[in-house]
Amino acid sequence: MTYFKNVSNIKYEGPNSTTPLAFKFYNPEEKINGKSMEEILRFGVAYWHTFTEDLSDPFGTGTAIRPWDKFSGMDLAKARVEGAFEFFEKLNVPFFAFHDVDIAPEGSTLRETNQNLDTIVAMIKDYMKDSKTKLLWNTVNNFSNPRFVHGAASSSNADVFAYSAAKVKKGLEVGKELGAENYVFWGGREGYETLLNTDMKLEMDNLARMFHMAIDYAKEIDFDAQFLIEPKPKEPTTHQYDFDVASGYAFLQNYGLQDHLKFNIEANHATLAGHTFEHELRYARIHGMLGSVDANQGHPLLGWDTDEFPTDLYTTTLAMYEILKNGGLGRGGLNFDAKVRRGSFEAEDLFHAHIAGMDSFAVGLKVAQKLIDDNVLDGIVEDRYSSYKDGIGLEIVEGKADFHKLEEHALGLTEIKNQSGKLERIKSTINQYLLRAYAGE
Amino acid sequence: MTYFKNVSNIKYEGPNSTTPLAFKFYNPEEKINGKSMEEILRFGVAYWHTFTEDLSDPFGTGTAIRPWDKFSGMDLAKARVEGAFEFFEKLNVPFFAFHDVDIAPEGSTLRETNQNLDTIVAMIKDYMKDSKTKLLWNTVNNFSNPRFVHGAASSSNADVFAYSAAKVKKGLEVGKELGAENYVFWGGREGYETLLNTDMKLEMDNLARMFHMAIDYAKEIDFDAQFLIEPKPKEPTTHQYDFDVASGYAFLQNYGLQDHLKFNIEANHATLAGHTFEHELRYARIHGMLGSVDANQGHPLLGWDTDEFPTDLYTTTLAMYEILKNGGLGRGGLNFDAKVRRGSFEAEDLFHAHIAGMDSFAVGLKVAQKLIDDNVLDGIVEDRYSSYKDGIGLEIVEGKADFHKLEEHALGLTEIKNQSGKLERIKSTINQYLLRAYAGE
Amino acid sequence: MTYFKNVSNIKYEGPNSTTPLAFKFYNPEEKINGKSMEEILRFGVAYWHTFTEDLSDPFGTGTAIRPWDKFSGMDLAKARVEGAFEFFEKLNVPFFAFHDVDIAPEGSTLRETNQNLDTIVAMIKDYMKDSKTKLLWNTVNNFSNPRFVHGAASSSNADVFAYSAAKVKKGLEVGKELGAENYVFWGGREGYETLLNTDMKLEMDNLARMFHMAIDYAKEIDFDAQFLIEPKPKEPTTHQYDFDVASGYAFLQNYGLQDHLKFNIEANHATLAGHTFEHELRYARIHGMLGSVDANQGHPLLGWDTDEFPTDLYTTTLAMYEILKNGGLGRGGLNFDAKVRRGSFEAEDLFHAHIAGMDSFAVGLKVAQKLIDDNVLDGIVEDRYSSYKDGIGLEIVEGKADFHKLEEHALGLTEIKNQSGKLERIKSTINQYLLRAYAGE
Amino acid sequence: MTYFKNVSNIKYEGPNSTTPLAFKFYNPEEKINGKSMEEILRFGVAYWHTFTEDLSDPFGTGTAIRPWDKFSGMDLAKARVEGAFEFFEKLNVPFFAFHDVDIAPEGSTLRETNQNLDTIVAMIKDYMKDSKTKLLWNTVNNFSNPRFVHGAASSSNADVFAYSAAKVKKGLEVGKELGAENYVFWGGREGYETLLNTDMKLEMDNLARMFHMAIDYAKEIDFDAQFLIEPKPKEPTTHQYDFDVASGYAFLQNYGLQDHLKFNIEANHATLAGHTFEHELRYARIHGMLGSVDANQGHPLLGWDTDEFPTDLYTTTLAMYEILKNGGLGRGGLNFDAKVRRGSFEAEDLFHAHIAGMDSFAVGLKVAQKLIDDNVLDGIVEDRYSSYKDGIGLEIVEGKADFHKLEEHALGLTEIKNQSGKLERIKSTINQYLLRAYAGE
Repeated sequence: MTYFKNVSNIKYEGPNSTTPLAFKFYNPEEKINGKSMEEILRFGVAYWHTFTEDLSDPFGTGTAIRPWDKFSGMDLAKARVEGAFEFFEKLNVPFFAFHDVDIAPEGSTLRETNQNLDTIVAMIKDYMKDSKTKLLWNTVNNFSNPRFVHGAASSSNADVFAYSAAKVKKGLEVGKELGAENYVFWGGREGYETLLNTDMKLEMDNLARMFHMAIDYAKEIDFDAQFLIEPKPKEPTTHQYDFDVASGYAFLQNYGLQDHLKFNIEANHATLAGHTFEHELRYARIHGMLGSVDANQGHPLLGWDTDEFPTDLYTTTLAMYEILKNGGLGRGGLNFDAKVRRGSFEAEDLFHAHIAGMDSFAVGLKVAQKLIDDNVLDGIVEDRYSSYKDGIGLEIVEGKADFHKLEEHALGLTEIKNQSGKLERIKSTINQYLLRAYAGE
Repeated sequence: MTYFKNVSNIKYEGPNSTTPLAFKFYNPEEKINGKSMEEILRFGVAYWHTFTEDLSDPFGTGTAIRPWDKFSGMDLAKARVEGAFEFFEKLNVPFFAFHDVDIAPEGSTLRETNQNLDTIVAMIKDYMKDSKTKLLWNTVNNFSNPRFVHGAASSSNADVFAYSAAKVKKGLEVGKELGAENYVFWGGREGYETLLNTDMKLEMDNLARMFHMAIDYAKEIDFDAQFLIEPKPKEPTTHQYDFDVASGYAFLQNYGLQDHLKFNIEANHATLAGHTFEHELRYARIHGMLGSVDANQGHPLLGWDTDEFPTDLYTTTLAMYEILKNGGLGRGGLNFDAKVRRGSFEAEDLFHAHIAGMDSFAVGLKVAQKLIDDNVLDGIVEDRYSSYKDGIGLEIVEGKADFHKLEEHALGLTEIKNQSGKLERIKSTINQYLLRAYAGE
Repeated sequence: MTYFKNVSNIKYEGPNSTTPLAFKFYNPEEKINGKSMEEILRFGVAYWHTFTEDLSDPFGTGTAIRPWDKFSGMDLAKARVEGAFEFFEKLNVPFFAFHDVDIAPEGSTLRETNQNLDTIVAMIKDYMKDSKTKLLWNTVNNFSNPRFVHGAASSSNADVFAYSAAKVKKGLEVGKELGAENYVFWGGREGYETLLNTDMKLEMDNLARMFHMAIDYAKEIDFDAQFLIEPKPKEPTTHQYDFDVASGYAFLQNYGLQDHLKFNIEANHATLAGHTFEHELRYARIHGMLGSVDANQGHPLLGWDTDEFPTDLYTTTLAMYEILKNGGLGRGGLNFDAKVRRGSFEAEDLFHAHIAGMDSFAVGLKVAQKLIDDNVLDGIVEDRYSSYKDGIGLEIVEGKADFHKLEEHALGLTEIKNQSGKLERIKSTINQYLLRAYAGE
Repeated sequence: MTYFKNVSNIKYEGPNSTTPLAFKFYNPEEKINGKSMEEILRFGVAYWHTFTEDLSDPFGTGTAIRPWDKFSGMDLAKARVEGAFEFFEKLNVPFFAFHDVDIAPEGSTLRETNQNLDTIVAMIKDYMKDSKTKLLWNTVNNFSNPRFVHGAASSSNADVFAYSAAKVKKGLEVGKELGAENYVFWGGREGYETLLNTDMKLEMDNLARMFHMAIDYAKEIDFDAQFLIEPKPKEPTTHQYDFDVASGYAFLQNYGLQDHLKFNIEANHATLAGHTFEHELRYARIHGMLGSVDANQGHPLLGWDTDEFPTDLYTTTLAMYEILKNGGLGRGGLNFDAKVRRGSFEAEDLFHAHIAGMDSFAVGLKVAQKLIDDNVLDGIVEDRYSSYKDGIGLEIVEGKADFHKLEEHALGLTEIKNQSGKLERIKSTINQYLLRAYAGE
């Protein structure tokens, strides 16, 4: 069966193309610094937003019109797999990602749920044989079912902890079975609604216990995926323990987990936490903790996770700058954890949205690479911090200065001369680099 | 005396220029749809941010290094006038704007203050004779002096109301003397810190009284400038009466002022109020109330008025779109109510910052004009709302439908078919138009 | 059938009671300044949050456990009516409120939907005969069904406008049938997601047309309820036209509607718009536009509508202060547009939550009345603004002053002396009044 | 000389007192659980806000009227010391805190600055001999002077690092000289304005180097104060490295500093970071990192640090709850890092504001202690998490469970039964406890 009848395979047609369903900037085969765009960007489609999401919101039922709407139960699950692989092929995308409940319906018991999963995982594995699209990561949804009302690993109910663990165990097995490159933990309800009834220490301890057990079990079954934590400050939970990358890093260090997990950083989660996307990437990068990216964007004036497809070229440029400076994404990728707007309810919008995101990151990649090639930002930084290259500055960074020596130096200074940070000029430069992207300069 | 010794006249050199102090996109003489960029954009330099601002913040004293720093008192005021007109000429800018206290120091009495003003106004008038740069607008600062601690027109102290009125009177006289195109009211402290000690009705009534008196007096002295209110939601005051354009419009209508004042809309004030800049422009435009613009931008993650120079090309594009659809700015202009960052403290940064802003609006203008020429957004809107062109839709907009007729129509509908809003595709299109700006396409 | 088997009628037992399901502060019969608490507070139960809400959120399915869960379709609708009136009686609450879809399921056609409504409305009317609980207001839900994806009265689709009108028509008829005191308009999707595809002027014009038609039809059928607009800035829509009371007031004036509608003000909508609840109440009050109140509260650190039950005594005090100064709520009331938290999923929590809200407003009422009786805030205001009682101040407020006279006055001032606003001392006083509430002082 | 002529010593007069300048709830000698209120609360006056602050804001010059306004230079510094100790005595406050520049003016050289400091420190030491008021903490202001435009320890300029180090060295010596209980680091500009020109890794490394040198030097001079970091997310800097307690804890662990510093937690900094005050206290407490508290509050609708005196009794209650559960503040205290409003410019307001804050924390202390005595919240928590006391729950917390065992347990569960979190009922309970505070119940 063909699900997206009116859509042909999406091709790169260059920036002057007027074909709506074509890439204008993302050319998978184009080489940037020796690697193809496809290899660098490692785009992934999010199963939940693209194949499961109905576009409901807290004030309305779903608007999405999908070619598999006529099915239900396991038939629906199977139709979605078929539609998904057709979508992957038409979009020519190298990766996908899913939660357990995205691909198979929950049964009335855990055993039945696992059986449903096994059926669909086998089907996916079969489809993957004939597809270039690989599994970037999988995870389990331990937040939607009412049993997780008070959290999963951080639930006040030990039965829920056990149930969550069983689901993670299965998730690791599924990941191994499908050759997942990464395994992600997003703690949707791992936090609290109110401190008034919360034992925060026990909850954090239990969260750490879950991670340790998962690491042990992955080792036991020889599943070598990269483990990732995805920070988010709030929503649905009033306060989530993995508020941002720094909070997550404090947690990992505190529980001896920092060598076993890295971060899956989402743009919209960054802004909800009061940070720019590039801040979170930078923080993770310089601490050696940048694992993968959930590529989306939020609305700067809205206070919830809008999960929009990324189209802001400033953000894609600065994100790609951090990724390139990181030496790439390694086993991670750019997963479109993004959904079409409620008003973009037609199936074709799914393609338009992904093209928008892929083209935007392709532009970001080209601009960022050019900024690096021309030594633009590095040059500015080298110049700004040059005082640490010799003299007292070098002694500071080499650990040879103490308060006596520094005071002596300071008392001897007749004048302190700072240089302008030149932010306005730098922003102008960024604009020029951005505008030149089209011309291929 | 030459103040900006290292800066020559700024020229348009085109997008490929590598001269730092050159326009890359703003070409004053370039014709867009029959009018020159200079005529359309009507850029203005803000006296306070460029010549008076010392770049202090609540946690630190000023960092600005300015060529007139050695002067004080009236000598300083005069040096700034000289420096200002040199700046205007080198930047080739058609307008400027000021508050009374920007150009002349307050004296120990109101009479002395007015004398200081008279001296400097005469000097400015003299300089204007040999300059192309005109006065976009002037205003009076009725918020910085401690006497305005509880507001000016909305002060709890009638003496302060009187004092404020006297200052506005003088401001109108100065505006007339210098041929100001507009006169602006920003009610910095016209609001409240707490409702607990505030007579909100009396304060709003008094604010309206002040506007009516100003209108009367302008008429009396035959000063025909356009009057403008500048909304801002908060800061310094906890709640300001002119929260946003809609609030201001409610106020104007309530007090019979809507035919006498329009709005001066600031980008950063819009975002502090929870709106996009283009929202405020659109709201004003469709109500016939768009007067002038304070061109700057805020930081989306900071909760105060950062007054940054505008460099976000999405925002300049959408702003220019509204302005072009408004038939231009009329007597208004694009006033850079923007300051260089505290870290950009060198005099040269003032030029870089203005160039950044002017180039950004020039790009915005070109992209917006192209969107209009190609009927991009208008075409989308025409198509989306086409159901109001005939049938029941036409009856609705022509006022021929009532609930009986509409119910009858609704009962007869077998299906309601909506179309996708296609936001992701539209955003992709905007990106393509933006990137083409450089290529002149 | 009894739905809330473990809950007896809730009684007032005084502040020292340790009975969990008892009022500690809300004593319906207690007289405050000659009127009973019940008459002043006019509490209402929101049908949707209490009887229909399943406590789902964007990241999880519903957790609510309700005694009518076993029913479905019209049986469910009927069971809820039975449960609702049992709840009203046990809570001893004088009012309730609903949307059409809360009480009866939508059918496959509008005609069938209306038939379902007729059945349940008749049943409710029957139950009301034996109940003290009256209908505070009703409304229609023109936002949840996918047909309203682009709005209702502001939809880009004229069929949707017609359908919305038909639903409002039915809503007015239902309101008349059940003797509703008010009819509310909350424009859930009357706004836009993006300006890029929006004809804002047509949408606002159409919204005004809908109001005019509704007013005409209510007159035609002799339905004399008070009409109310409920402002909300955003969510679900990115920007809602009734952003706040001031925006709504601008709209009403612009379209000649200000004599036909007042405002239904919700606390959480106020804070989402950047205002305190008391600000919105004050603004409406001094413009003669305060109609009714949606009593809830938001979380100050969350950016969406949490609709929590109101327990913050500062807010209930300041809200009741505005309401008392307004001469009460007239035909309006305090409707608990509030839902129990997702974690408070047991049926009994519905009672606890309403008790919490009712007790909190009862405390607020007593504190506010005491502040008024003791002339606390009025005294401060009278003193602060005393300069407008005579001399130049009186001339200002009487319209006898102009700029000449005011300048003359200002030039004659040797010193301007302001008084401290004393906010810290006032806040201390509020705390003392609050803490005395328990002691009945 | 007497500075506060109209103010007598502030006494405790009980809740029914109508004396404005009296404590109604703070009774220093009252014993709570065996310790006096004074010992538990350890209130401190902030020198900067109370004696140096002029109440200017970004839009206006200072309004404060102070009895030492006629002095300048070192005379002003000395007058402030005299006024300060009179203030301490009249307020009967056990602690104070200062930055170097609060107490003595900067000279034209570092040497002169240090001499000024020495003079005033000697004077303060002398005054302390006759005073009960001790130094809670001191620090150095490494953010106000233009030299710190790009940061201090994180400056791009090595000379500035050296200068900062020299100032910290002096600060440690001053702390030792005056017997400071703590030494605080607030990194006002230790962060970045933009990543575009920032070497974040070098800056964070250098920040850590500064802490290590400070620790070494304190040891060298035998200064045994508790070292404290004060997190703040932003302002003046766009992004500050010590964003919140969790970020700070990540930093301390990463650089091996976690055993040498604790946190000084400010309420308003917490809310700016998106956290409740009690969250930050709880996080620090359960990690053994709660050092001291900056007692103030922000305005929930304003996006900057308003530093208001704390009067919200909910917040003081929950803060004191954390502090009591922490076993008290140890060497820390409740420092009023709070300023009177710009409108509260009279000297007497300084007393009113402190009384407001001290009474509010005294109420908070009593309510919190009562909640503990009655086992209210602990009881709720014990009950909620009881499943971890035996069976599979106990195995989890004892580290005896792995994924195999947990899966087995989960597969055997027929039903998972969660309990309501009962938040509404808990909030009602808090209100009752709060209202009873007055009655001493």
